[in-house]
Amino acid sequence: MNRFAVAGGYIIKSAGDVVRDKYIIVEDSVIKDIRDDLPEDIDTVIGGPYDIVMPGLINTHTHASMTLFRGMADDLPLMTWLKDYIFPAEAKFVDKEFVYIGSMLAAWEMTRSGTTAFCDGYFFEDQVGRAAGEIGIRAWLGEGILEFPSPSLTDPSRTIEHSREFISRWIDNDLVKPTVFPHAVYTCPPDLLKKAYELAEEFDLVFQIHLSETHSEIEQVRQRYNMTPVELMDSIGCLSERTLAAHCVVLNTREIELLARRGVSVSHNAESNMKLASGIAPVPEMIASGVNVTIGTDGCASNNNLDIIGEISSVAKLHKINTMDPTVLDECTAFAMVSENGAKALGFNGGRLAPGLPADIVVIDGHAPNLVPVYNPVSHVIYAATGSNVKDVVIAGRIIVKDYASLTVDEEALIKECRKIQKFISAQ
Amino acid sequence: MNRFAVAGGYIIKSAGDVVRDKYIIVEDSVIKDIRDDLPEDIDTVIGGPYDIVMPGLINTHTHASMTLFRGMADDLPLMTWLKDYIFPAEAKFVDKEFVYIGSMLAAWEMTRSGTTAFCDGYFFEDQVGRAAGEIGIRAWLGEGILEFPSPSLTDPSRTIEHSREFISRWIDNDLVKPTVFPHAVYTCPPDLLKKAYELAEEFDLVFQIHLSETHSEIEQVRQRYNMTPVELMDSIGCLSERTLAAHCVVLNTREIELLARRGVSVSHNAESNMKLASGIAPVPEMIASGVNVTIGTDGCASNNNLDIIGEISSVAKLHKINTMDPTVLDECTAFAMVSENGAKALGFNGGRLAPGLPADIVVIDGHAPNLVPVYNPVSHVIYAATGSNVKDVVIAGRIIVKDYASLTVDEEALIKECRKIQKFISAQ
Repeated sequence: MNRFAVAGGYIIKSAGDVVRDKYIIVEDSVIKDIRDDLPEDIDTVIGGPYDIVMPGLINTHTHASMTLFRGMADDLPLMTWLKDYIFPAEAKFVDKEFVYIGSMLAAWEMTRSGTTAFCDGYFFEDQVGRAAGEIGIRAWLGEGILEFPSPSLTDPSRTIEHSREFISRWIDNDLVKPTVFPHAVYTCPPDLLKKAYELAEEFDLVFQIHLSETHSEIEQVRQRYNMTPVELMDSIGCLSERTLAAHCVVLNTREIELLARRGVSVSHNAESNMKLASGIAPVPEMIASGVNVTIGTDGCASNNNLDIIGEISSVAKLHKINTMDPTVLDECTAFAMVSENGAKALGFNGGRLAPGLPADIVVIDGHAPNLVPVYNPVSHVIYAATGSNVKDVVIAGRIIVKDYASLTVDEEALIKECRKIQKFISAQ
Repeated sequence: MNRFAVAGGYIIKSAGDVVRDKYIIVEDSVIKDIRDDLPEDIDTVIGGPYDIVMPGLINTHTHASMTLFRGMADDLPLMTWLKDYIFPAEAKFVDKEFVYIGSMLAAWEMTRSGTTAFCDGYFFEDQVGRAAGEIGIRAWLGEGILEFPSPSLTDPSRTIEHSREFISRWIDNDLVKPTVFPHAVYTCPPDLLKKAYELAEEFDLVFQIHLSETHSEIEQVRQRYNMTPVELMDSIGCLSERTLAAHCVVLNTREIELLARRGVSVSHNAESNMKLASGIAPVPEMIASGVNVTIGTDGCASNNNLDIIGEISSVAKLHKINTMDPTVLDECTAFAMVSENGAKALGFNGGRLAPGLPADIVVIDGHAPNLVPVYNPVSHVIYAATGSNVKDVVIAGRIIVKDYASLTVDEEALIKECRKIQKFISAQ
């Protein structure tokens, strides 16, 4: 039997529940116990007396393999960036191999920086699942549904069938869960959205979509349908507790209340929205209305890293300055967004540390210069730490990172593959 | 003779000048050469073929020893934070030992995250100088000038004399430079500011001050003097090329032009301003008007780390979203702020890599998961890296950090001292 302990000086069981000097006993894939002393029969202990131990963090919106486009195009107007750089690059370079290597890189980066579960939407998602399985990170994956041909599907009339096939291949996997991922309201007409939603209902899956990301999206959808994207989604019954809406930058009060009433989860992608100057999502208003707000990094073409700890720090500070109120988005609220709220959005029984729950555990190095001294460990995670302070990571009871070393990836071989693709792209 | 090489795959000589695959030859405290091959007589080489090598980064505003208050009080209204937490804590705990240990912690954190020079203002600044000398980081230091008693001076009538004594002790030091540091316009009356400025002129020093940080400061100064802080400073001749003004959040167009005309340097402290919800400094407008804008982290009571790479990333993104223009504060502009602009503000002949310049050099790990692949190394520094990706640091020709290890500090002993102070503070 797989059995070991995670020791910590500060155990963040959940945002508001911190205990001192405990051992978390892991058995197989779950947390068996959280206790004061180390059982005699346990030899393997990770973490230590001053370390901060917390639940694995959850990134609810990314496009993993876009790591391979990291830093390719910055500081550009949104439409120039998208139409002159990203779309052509995707058409030219995105294939199975690209998605596999890019997702390996992403899963390596995410696990090294404390993310234990992520929600992804892109093309060739089988390759993302393959990478997630190899690295050992939980993944919720959706094959992009579009009304146009995509890198992974030349015949868009097969887009729903294509997703159904993807779902059937992963529906019974423990670590990798399929989702349904229509790209957006402006790239999927209402009948396609409806079919996609029915597919999610049929298999009881998360229904993820980009929603109300930019002002130009609102304008475009309004002109075509005389409704906002949120109104359109609601008019065809696509807003529910299974809906995970990424971005939600441009919302009015009525729409916020609607999202709350329907039980929709939102993935807030602050750094991407800042870098692309899309706008600032009304996060404090959403939280006040009862919307389940979670955190995503978005893809590395617009961020440019997958450091969820850096992301949550940006989130907490951005909304303080935006509202000119330093009490907004306090550290406990921010911590919940990146842990239990994320779990809730994915229908995952995790995001907290407690006996019986999945053993997804992150250890933050209590000896890092930026984390000494400690008055409040939750404050450190939100305001002082970076992803690079993550020392050990356990996912589903498996030790993935130990003492800053990734145990499930051949780093040098992977870097070599990434550089090969970089060379190929740079030569074009 | 001290002689070694720094190797890099990408050498950022300055923001707009990146070269590939070079060796930087260091002799004693300066850069002797930047060349294609390694001289045969050199045995010591730091860095490697895929690493990003850049000038040491410059933090132009901090309060180093406040690291010991890190995470003590967050998410509070500004005045509650200041009056109920920070001021009482300073009165109670800040002494020589506190400032020395806190500054050691700060200098350790700064060097580990790529800062090779910092400008500090606080109390017992001899202790900051002592710590800077021990760690081997360049420091520009100012003993706080106030019209009230301070932790380091009970008789405020001696405040100028107290500063003069501090200056005389450090004026001939190579690594540590004295400055004059009147705290702010609302804590120093005009005659005191004038005397402080004359002191700076007498010794040809940087004159640093908190300026126009909050709306309440503007209101307070206007009521007392019927002028804004910037207008008051100008009316008494305190704005010049030696002036380094921290924050400058609340400025009108006329004031921006005045700062530019007088040659004032500004230290922009974005993360502190965000976290305390003070406001957003008009950085793009200042740059357009020709103000020399630099970057500071502020103290750890309001940030809560000294990671200047994280700070510059926040700066670049904050002004994009604030102006709703993703082309604002592009990566080269941002890089200059944290390197050559900082040097200019301090009257320091550094902030770039070139033969004859001081050997202040930072190596970023090209094998870090968040920095693979590389299309543009400047983009990586601004948007993808964190301070924890800094692998090696050279200051004045001395290797301070090598392969992530600090060579000039006993980390365990220092952490122990910090925890002692934490325990003492927590018990009160």
